[in-house]
Amino acid sequence: MMKHSYKVSLFLLIILIAGCDLEKKTEETTGQSASGFAKGEKINSANFTGTVWLNMMGATDSALHVSYGNVTFEPKARTNWHSHPGGQLLLITGGKGYYQALGEPARLLRKGDNVEIPPNVVHWHGAAPDSEFSHIAVSLNTDKGGAVWLKPVTEEEYGGIK
Amino acid sequence: MMKHSYKVSLFLLIILIAGCDLEKKTEETTGQSASGFAKGEKINSANFTGTVWLNMMGATDSALHVSYGNVTFEPKARTNWHSHPGGQLLLITGGKGYYQALGEPARLLRKGDNVEIPPNVVHWHGAAPDSEFSHIAVSLNTDKGGAVWLKPVTEEEYGGIK
Repeated sequence: MMKHSYKVSLFLLIILIAGCDLEKKTEETTGQSASGFAKGEKINSANFTGTVWLNMMGATDSALHVSYGNVTFEPKARTNWHSHPGGQLLLITGGKGYYQALGEPARLLRKGDNVEIPPNVVHWHGAAPDSEFSHIAVSLNTDKGGAVWLKPVTEEEYGGIK
Repeated sequence: MMKHSYKVSLFLLIILIAGCDLEKKTEETTGQSASGFAKGEKINSANFTGTVWLNMMGATDSALHVSYGNVTFEPKARTNWHSHPGGQLLLITGGKGYYQALGEPARLLRKGDNVEIPPNVVHWHGAAPDSEFSHIAVSLNTDKGGAVWLKPVTEEEYGGIK
Protein backbone atom coordinates (compact mmCIF):
# COMPACT_ATOMS: atom_id res chain seq x y z
CA MET A 1 0.00 0.00 0.00
CA MET A 2 2.81 2.34 0.95
CA LYS A 3 4.65 1.46 -2.25
CA HIS A 4 1.56 2.19 -4.35
CA SER A 5 1.08 5.65 -2.77
CA TYR A 6 4.74 6.38 -3.37
CA LYS A 7 4.37 5.62 -7.08
CA VAL A 8 1.22 7.73 -7.42
CA SER A 9 2.91 10.61 -5.60
CA LEU A 10 6.03 10.37 -7.77
CA PHE A 11 3.88 10.27 -10.91
CA LEU A 12 1.99 13.43 -9.89
CA LEU A 13 5.29 15.14 -9.04
CA ILE A 14 6.68 14.40 -12.51
CA ILE A 15 3.47 15.63 -14.18
CA LEU A 16 3.61 18.90 -12.24
CA ILE A 17 7.28 19.55 -12.98
CA ALA A 18 6.80 18.68 -16.67
CA GLY A 19 3.80 21.03 -16.81
CA CYS A 20 5.78 23.95 -15.37
CA ASP A 21 8.69 23.34 -17.73
CA LEU A 22 6.41 23.10 -20.77
CA GLU A 23 4.83 26.45 -19.92
CA LYS A 24 8.25 28.14 -19.78
CA LYS A 25 9.40 26.58 -23.05
CA THR A 26 6.28 27.80 -24.87
CA GLU A 27 7.14 31.39 -23.98
CA GLU A 28 10.79 31.06 -24.97
CA THR A 29 10.26 29.50 -28.37
CA THR A 30 7.63 31.99 -29.53
CA GLY A 31 9.92 34.95 -28.82
CA GLN A 32 7.19 36.50 -26.71
CA SER A 33 7.30 37.85 -23.20
CA ALA A 34 4.62 36.79 -20.75
CA SER A 35 2.65 39.84 -21.94
CA GLY A 36 2.02 38.10 -25.29
CA PHE A 37 3.55 40.95 -27.32
CA ALA A 38 6.40 39.62 -29.48
CA LYS A 39 9.95 40.74 -28.63
CA GLY A 40 10.86 41.53 -32.25
CA GLU A 41 14.41 42.14 -33.45
CA LYS A 42 17.57 43.53 -31.85
CA ILE A 43 18.00 47.27 -32.50
CA ASN A 44 21.29 48.33 -34.09
CA SER A 45 21.33 52.07 -33.38
CA ALA A 46 23.56 54.69 -31.77
CA ASN A 47 20.44 56.05 -30.05
CA PHE A 48 20.58 53.24 -27.47
CA THR A 49 23.08 51.88 -24.90
CA GLY A 50 23.15 48.10 -24.39
CA THR A 51 20.95 45.43 -25.98
CA VAL A 52 17.43 46.48 -26.93
CA TRP A 53 14.72 44.59 -28.88
CA LEU A 54 11.96 46.24 -30.94
CA ASN A 55 8.69 44.84 -32.26
CA MET A 56 7.29 47.69 -34.36
CA MET A 57 3.53 47.23 -34.26
CA GLY A 58 2.41 50.23 -36.33
CA ALA A 59 4.17 53.14 -37.99
CA THR A 60 1.78 54.82 -40.32
CA ASP A 61 1.39 58.32 -41.63
CA SER A 62 -2.35 57.67 -41.70
CA ALA A 63 -5.12 59.68 -40.08
CA LEU A 64 -4.23 58.08 -36.72
CA HIS A 65 -0.96 60.09 -36.42
CA VAL A 66 0.54 57.33 -34.27
CA SER A 67 3.61 55.10 -34.22
CA TYR A 68 3.85 52.26 -31.66
CA GLY A 69 5.80 49.17 -30.74
CA ASN A 70 6.93 46.83 -27.98
CA VAL A 71 10.46 47.61 -26.69
CA THR A 72 12.45 45.19 -24.51
CA PHE A 73 15.62 46.38 -22.75
CA GLU A 74 18.12 43.87 -21.32
CA PRO A 75 19.44 44.79 -17.82
CA LYS A 76 21.24 48.22 -17.87
CA ALA A 77 20.11 48.91 -21.48
CA ARG A 78 18.49 52.31 -22.13
CA THR A 79 17.59 54.94 -24.68
CA ASN A 80 19.67 58.08 -25.22
CA TRP A 81 18.21 61.32 -23.95
CA HIS A 82 15.53 62.34 -26.48
CA SER A 83 12.17 64.09 -26.95
CA HIS A 84 8.98 63.70 -29.02
CA PRO A 85 7.31 66.71 -30.70
CA GLY A 86 3.86 65.10 -30.25
CA GLY A 87 4.45 63.33 -26.91
CA GLN A 88 4.44 59.61 -26.04
CA LEU A 89 2.77 57.04 -23.78
CA LEU A 90 4.68 54.18 -22.13
CA LEU A 91 2.61 51.13 -21.09
CA ILE A 92 4.83 48.85 -18.97
CA THR A 93 4.31 45.19 -19.93
CA GLY A 94 7.09 43.50 -17.94
CA GLY A 95 10.15 43.72 -15.72
CA LYS A 96 11.56 46.71 -13.87
CA GLY A 97 13.02 49.93 -15.23
CA TYR A 98 13.15 53.72 -15.12
CA TYR A 99 11.81 56.87 -16.76
CA GLN A 100 13.62 60.14 -16.12
CA ALA A 101 12.79 63.63 -17.41
CA LEU A 102 15.73 66.07 -17.53
CA GLY A 103 16.17 67.84 -14.18
CA GLU A 104 13.82 65.46 -12.33
CA PRO A 105 14.40 62.29 -10.25
CA ALA A 106 14.13 58.94 -12.07
CA ARG A 107 10.81 57.08 -11.62
CA LEU A 108 10.89 53.33 -10.89
CA LEU A 109 8.46 51.46 -13.19
CA ARG A 110 6.96 47.95 -13.07
CA LYS A 111 4.47 45.87 -15.08
CA GLY A 112 1.10 47.65 -15.18
CA ASP A 113 2.53 51.17 -14.73
CA ASN A 114 2.23 53.90 -17.36
CA VAL A 115 3.94 57.19 -18.20
CA GLU A 116 2.66 60.24 -20.12
CA ILE A 117 5.56 62.09 -21.75
CA PRO A 118 4.54 65.63 -22.79
CA PRO A 119 5.70 67.07 -26.13
CA ASN A 120 9.34 68.23 -26.26
CA VAL A 121 10.24 67.06 -22.71
CA VAL A 122 13.82 65.69 -22.80
CA HIS A 123 13.92 62.25 -21.12
CA TRP A 124 15.21 58.66 -21.24
CA HIS A 125 13.82 55.22 -20.34
CA GLY A 126 15.42 51.84 -19.82
CA ALA A 127 15.96 48.75 -17.68
CA ALA A 128 17.08 48.52 -14.05
CA PRO A 129 20.60 47.10 -13.50
CA ASP A 130 19.22 43.74 -12.33
CA SER A 131 16.12 43.26 -14.53
CA GLU A 132 14.83 43.17 -18.09
CA PHE A 133 12.23 45.84 -18.86
CA SER A 134 9.47 45.88 -21.51
CA HIS A 135 7.00 48.56 -22.53
CA ILE A 136 4.72 49.42 -25.42
CA ALA A 137 5.71 52.93 -26.52
CA VAL A 138 2.92 54.88 -28.28
CA SER A 139 4.24 58.00 -30.05
CA LEU A 140 1.35 60.43 -30.48
CA ASN A 141 0.56 63.28 -32.88
CA THR A 142 3.37 62.11 -35.17
CA ASP A 143 2.27 64.64 -37.79
CA LYS A 144 4.26 67.08 -35.60
CA GLY A 145 7.49 65.15 -36.35
CA GLY A 146 9.64 62.22 -35.22
CA ALA A 147 11.80 61.77 -32.10
CA VAL A 148 14.67 64.21 -31.55
CA TRP A 149 17.70 62.16 -30.42
CA LEU A 150 20.40 63.57 -28.10
CA LYS A 151 23.43 62.25 -26.14
CA PRO A 152 23.71 58.82 -24.44
CA VAL A 153 22.81 58.51 -20.74
CA THR A 154 26.30 58.24 -19.19
CA GLU A 155 27.38 55.61 -16.66
CA GLU A 156 27.49 58.43 -14.08
CA GLU A 157 23.91 59.53 -14.87
CA TYR A 158 22.62 55.93 -14.88
CA GLY A 159 24.62 54.92 -11.79
CA GLY A 160 23.45 57.99 -9.88
CA ILE A 161 19.77 56.91 -9.70
CA LYS A 162 18.59 56.81 -6.08
CA MET B 1 14.59 3.86 2.48
CA MET B 2 11.40 3.59 0.41
CA LYS B 3 9.44 5.24 3.20
CA HIS B 4 11.91 8.14 3.32
CA SER B 5 11.67 8.72 -0.45
CA TYR B 6 7.91 8.69 -0.20
CA LYS B 7 7.96 11.41 2.45
CA VAL B 8 10.38 13.57 0.44
CA SER B 9 8.26 13.15 -2.67
CA LEU B 10 5.06 14.01 -0.84
CA PHE B 11 6.71 17.08 0.70
CA LEU B 12 7.82 18.34 -2.73
CA LEU B 13 4.36 17.70 -4.14
CA ILE B 14 2.74 19.81 -1.39
CA ILE B 15 5.27 22.63 -1.93
CA LEU B 16 4.54 22.69 -5.67
CA ILE B 17 0.76 22.69 -5.27
CA ALA B 18 0.96 25.39 -2.57
CA GLY B 19 3.22 27.46 -4.84
CA CYS B 20 0.80 27.29 -7.77
CA ASP B 21 -2.14 28.19 -5.55
CA LEU B 22 -0.30 31.14 -3.98
CA GLU B 23 0.48 32.55 -7.42
CA LYS B 24 -3.20 32.43 -8.41
CA LYS B 25 -4.34 34.07 -5.16
CA THR B 26 -1.89 36.94 -5.59
CA GLU B 27 -3.46 37.85 -8.92
CA GLU B 28 -7.01 37.62 -7.62
CA THR B 29 -6.57 39.77 -4.54
CA THR B 30 -4.78 42.64 -6.27
CA GLY B 31 -7.63 43.07 -8.78
CA GLN B 32 -5.10 42.83 -11.59
CA SER B 33 -5.00 40.56 -14.58
CA ALA B 34 -1.78 38.71 -15.37
CA SER B 35 -0.88 41.72 -17.55
CA GLY B 36 -0.34 43.83 -14.43
CA PHE B 37 -2.85 46.49 -15.54
CA ALA B 38 -5.54 46.91 -12.85
CA LYS B 39 -9.10 45.82 -13.72
CA GLY B 40 -10.68 48.99 -12.32
CA GLU B 41 -14.41 49.36 -11.67
CA LYS B 42 -17.56 47.88 -13.23
CA ILE B 43 -19.02 50.10 -15.94
CA ASN B 44 -22.66 51.08 -15.49
CA SER B 45 -23.57 52.29 -19.00
CA ALA B 46 -26.15 51.63 -21.72
CA ASN B 47 -23.26 51.66 -24.23
CA PHE B 48 -22.29 48.10 -23.22
CA THR B 49 -23.95 44.65 -23.07
CA GLY B 50 -22.95 42.39 -20.16
CA THR B 51 -20.39 42.99 -17.42
CA VAL B 52 -17.44 45.22 -18.31
CA TRP B 53 -14.66 46.64 -16.10
CA LEU B 54 -12.75 49.88 -16.79
CA ASN B 55 -9.46 51.15 -15.41
CA MET B 56 -9.20 54.65 -16.88
CA MET B 57 -5.45 55.34 -17.11
CA GLY B 58 -5.46 58.80 -18.69
CA ALA B 59 -8.14 61.13 -20.01
CA THR B 60 -6.67 64.53 -20.51
CA ASP B 61 -7.37 67.43 -22.79
CA SER B 62 -3.64 68.12 -22.76
CA ALA B 63 -1.30 68.46 -25.71
CA LEU B 64 -1.24 64.64 -26.02
CA HIS B 65 -4.83 64.52 -27.38
CA VAL B 66 -5.23 60.98 -25.99
CA SER B 67 -7.57 59.07 -23.69
CA TYR B 68 -6.69 55.51 -22.64
CA GLY B 69 -7.60 52.74 -20.26
CA ASN B 70 -7.68 48.99 -19.59
CA VAL B 71 -11.05 47.38 -20.40
CA THR B 72 -12.01 43.87 -19.23
CA PHE B 73 -15.07 42.13 -20.70
CA GLU B 74 -16.60 39.09 -18.99
CA PRO B 75 -17.59 36.25 -21.42
CA LYS B 76 -20.22 37.49 -23.98
CA ALA B 77 -19.85 41.12 -22.83
CA ARG B 78 -19.28 43.73 -25.55
CA THR B 79 -19.47 47.37 -26.54
CA ASN B 80 -22.37 48.80 -28.58
CA TRP B 81 -21.62 49.68 -32.18
CA HIS B 82 -19.70 52.99 -32.09
CA SER B 83 -17.01 55.09 -33.80
CA HIS B 84 -14.17 57.47 -32.86
CA PRO B 85 -13.61 60.76 -34.74
CA GLY B 86 -9.84 60.50 -34.12
CA GLY B 87 -9.44 56.70 -34.32
CA GLN B 88 -8.35 54.19 -31.67
CA LEU B 89 -5.74 51.47 -30.96
CA LEU B 90 -6.58 48.22 -29.15
CA LEU B 91 -3.66 46.42 -27.47
CA ILE B 92 -4.87 42.97 -26.35
CA THR B 93 -3.58 42.15 -22.85
CA GLY B 94 -5.49 38.94 -22.08
CA GLY B 95 -8.14 36.39 -22.98
CA LYS B 96 -9.99 35.92 -26.24
CA GLY B 97 -12.43 38.24 -28.02
CA TYR B 98 -13.53 39.93 -31.22
CA TYR B 99 -13.29 43.17 -33.19
CA GLN B 100 -15.78 43.75 -35.99
CA ALA B 101 -16.10 46.72 -38.37
CA LEU B 102 -19.54 47.24 -39.90
CA GLY B 103 -19.94 45.17 -43.07
CA GLU B 104 -16.79 43.08 -42.41
CA PRO B 105 -16.24 39.67 -40.78
CA ALA B 106 -15.36 39.65 -37.06
CA ARG B 107 -11.64 39.24 -36.23
CA LEU B 108 -10.64 36.80 -33.46
CA LEU B 109 -8.18 38.45 -31.04
CA ARG B 110 -5.83 37.04 -28.40
CA LYS B 111 -3.20 38.37 -25.96
CA GLY B 112 -0.46 40.19 -27.89
CA ASP B 113 -2.67 41.15 -30.86
CA ASN B 114 -3.48 44.74 -31.78
CA VAL B 115 -6.08 46.58 -33.86
CA GLU B 116 -5.94 49.98 -35.58
CA ILE B 117 -9.42 51.49 -35.85
CA PRO B 118 -9.52 54.33 -38.40
CA PRO B 119 -11.48 57.53 -37.67
CA ASN B 120 -15.28 57.25 -38.05
CA VAL B 121 -15.32 53.48 -38.79
CA VAL B 122 -18.39 51.97 -37.08
CA HIS B 123 -17.36 48.88 -35.07
CA TRP B 124 -17.68 46.91 -31.82
CA HIS B 125 -15.33 44.85 -29.63
CA GLY B 126 -15.89 42.38 -26.83
CA ALA B 127 -15.28 38.94 -25.30
CA ALA B 128 -15.76 35.50 -26.84
CA PRO B 129 -18.67 33.45 -25.45
CA ASP B 130 -16.30 31.22 -23.46
CA SER B 131 -13.55 33.63 -22.34
CA GLU B 132 -12.81 36.90 -20.59
CA PHE B 133 -11.12 39.51 -22.80
CA SER B 134 -8.91 42.45 -21.84
CA HIS B 135 -7.39 45.25 -23.90
CA ILE B 136 -5.87 48.67 -23.45
CA ALA B 137 -7.89 51.05 -25.64
CA VAL B 138 -5.98 54.18 -26.75
CA SER B 139 -8.30 56.82 -28.23
CA LEU B 140 -6.25 59.10 -30.47
CA ASN B 141 -6.60 62.69 -31.69
CA THR B 142 -9.29 63.30 -29.08
CA ASP B 143 -9.31 67.00 -29.98
CA LYS B 144 -11.53 65.83 -32.88
CA GLY B 145 -14.21 64.70 -30.38
CA GLY B 146 -15.30 61.76 -28.22
CA ALA B 147 -16.80 58.37 -29.19
CA VAL B 148 -20.11 58.36 -31.09
CA TRP B 149 -22.31 55.63 -29.53
CA LEU B 150 -24.90 53.67 -31.53
CA LYS B 151 -27.16 50.60 -31.02
CA PRO B 152 -26.29 47.46 -29.02
CA VAL B 153 -24.82 44.44 -30.84
CA THR B 154 -27.84 42.11 -30.92
CA GLU B 155 -27.83 38.44 -29.89
CA GLU B 156 -28.29 37.62 -33.58
CA GLU B 157 -25.26 39.72 -34.64
CA TYR B 158 -23.10 38.32 -31.81
CA GLY B 159 -24.30 34.74 -32.28
CA GLY B 160 -23.69 34.93 -36.05
CA ILE B 161 -19.89 35.23 -35.76
CA LYS B 162 -18.18 32.48 -37.73
